[in-house]
Amino acid sequence: LSPSPVSPVLELGPGKEFDRIRAIARALGTQASGLGDDCALLPAGAGILALSTDVSVENIHFRLDWLALDEVGWRAAAAALSDLAAEGAQPEGMLVALVAPASASEADLSAVMSGAGSAGATVGAPVIGGDLSTGPVWSITVTVVGRAAVPVTRAGARPGDGLWVTGVLGGARAALEAWRRGDRPESLARAAFARPEPRIVAGRWLGARGAHAMLDLSDGLGGDAGHLAAASGVALKLALDRLPAAADAVAEAGRLGIPVQRFAAEGGEDYELLAALPAEFGAADAMVFQRECGVALSRVGEVEQGSGVHAMLGGQPVILTGFDHFALPR
Amino acid sequence: LSPSPVSPVLELGPGKEFDRIRAIARALGTQASGLGDDCALLPAGAGILALSTDVSVENIHFRLDWLALDEVGWRAAAAALSDLAAEGAQPEGMLVALVAPASASEADLSAVMSGAGSAGATVGAPVIGGDLSTGPVWSITVTVVGRAAVPVTRAGARPGDGLWVTGVLGGARAALEAWRRGDRPESLARAAFARPEPRIVAGRWLGARGAHAMLDLSDGLGGDAGHLAAASGVALKLALDRLPAAADAVAEAGRLGIPVQRFAAEGGEDYELLAALPAEFGAADAMVFQRECGVALSRVGEVEQGSGVHAMLGGQPVILTGFDHFALPR
Repeated sequence: LSPSPVSPVLELGPGKEFDRIRAIARALGTQASGLGDDCALLPAGAGILALSTDVSVENIHFRLDWLALDEVGWRAAAAALSDLAAEGAQPEGMLVALVAPASASEADLSAVMSGAGSAGATVGAPVIGGDLSTGPVWSITVTVVGRAAVPVTRAGARPGDGLWVTGVLGGARAALEAWRRGDRPESLARAAFARPEPRIVAGRWLGARGAHAMLDLSDGLGGDAGHLAAASGVALKLALDRLPAAADAVAEAGRLGIPVQRFAAEGGEDYELLAALPAEFGAADAMVFQRECGVALSRVGEVEQGSGVHAMLGGQPVILTGFDHFALPR
Repeated sequence: LSPSPVSPVLELGPGKEFDRIRAIARALGTQASGLGDDCALLPAGAGILALSTDVSVENIHFRLDWLALDEVGWRAAAAALSDLAAEGAQPEGMLVALVAPASASEADLSAVMSGAGSAGATVGAPVIGGDLSTGPVWSITVTVVGRAAVPVTRAGARPGDGLWVTGVLGGARAALEAWRRGDRPESLARAAFARPEPRIVAGRWLGARGAHAMLDLSDGLGGDAGHLAAASGVALKLALDRLPAAADAVAEAGRLGIPVQRFAAEGGEDYELLAALPAEFGAADAMVFQRECGVALSRVGEVEQGSGVHAMLGGQPVILTGFDHFALPR
């Protein structure tokens, strides 16, 4: 009955948010175990149990003039479920701890919980527990539990692997940029932010197909590629020209005067997957993936010996920055 | 791989906080599963996995002029671990989602996490995951995972069972009452509030000894006895004269002009256990418990056919009220 997590402590990429996590891990010392992956992993009979917790705070992660309450719940649950997708795990349930202003009605509470429940229902994860409190703003902490025969951590990428991303990137950021300047986002961009789809089917498919490493793009490719490189002890070479950008990202990138690929790579919270797949995985396999999972899969680079993230755009090296959820009130 | 929680939805006792939970459960419908016990239960190879989530919010559950930051973390973790104790489960790990004011230093964050980690370390539960965000006030959501061969739910109490509580009650409330009037609480009362000990060893002992039902006293005996009665479909007869009250509760009850037993029964957050034990469990068994678990066990009533909680004090019936965490900003 002693704790026996499967995963060791993984290295994180650069960033102030991750300096904080490193400091906390140092302070915890032996009181922590297996930190740094998308999920905590525990042995559980046949298979491995994967657990992850994710907090969404009003005015930090979302604003109520942007989202309806059911979308607040959906987004919070989808963000947590996305960590199970990144592990190649099948969700089994969610625990939802909800902090609401004292002025919230029973209908308000039910709307947030129903939104979370709806996101879970699309991937087989009922609400199996929770907690309620009042507080100065809305805050939702969703803890997800799932199972994988062989979890895919961030640590297994090998030189020679191809790097692939699901879906398109930059949609959530396009919505954010529109809201920030007081506009209404385009409907696809809004949906990318308000109702992201956890890539559970895609994650399980890629895990079964032998993905060496995987994570979900919550900090943006610029931040998350650094985590995968650090955890695996490899260098990642990114060909940003190949990056699949969301349609609505083009106009927003134009307003900011930056290339759309950079806009997409530095936008957070797309909740797509970044996977290191064996070298022999090719375009034909990606077509099968797309047919079976209903989402695109694009090759965006490769794994090499070394360290760090090396991105190229239009023949020039580009230093990508990540997305700091902690420091960035929006 | 489909979700298959072990526990059905359990009935909750009366109270406005629980009306809210009932409304949410109705709104969730089939998107929820197994709500209403101390823990969510999932089958996991040999044994049952128990999961629970617990949120602590600054100025609702604690104030920073009352507690040091490491005590904030300890208390949040202990409150969550207490739900595993109530299931008779052995903890295996904790996920800690921490919301901190933007002004918090790395040392502040580490202090809260170390406090949580220390509480976990006393019962074999390392921090295996977490999340960080900024927010207007401190808020800590601790999700615990543990395992039990045979979990003890709230639902199994049978007419004829004895009702027993661990430790002494009213200590946490004594501290709260002192703080509320601007005083410093006595040191034992302060410790009961700031550093409650999750009754893991006691919970496992009582589970192994055949407890029919169990829960932890977070809402106070007045509230929690109602949950046990409702979940088990029985009546609980409480002899409040026998209630083991904390030493510091006597003076505080005196100030409020109420009997100490009532003060103790209506105080929340003692995190002691209430267990329904087979009729043959007696005083000699309680002595063995006390020797092996290092905490007292007192008989406070019995289970009967019927419904609701029927408390007697000094030969008179008493209507106990619970402790509403949601409605009560302190």
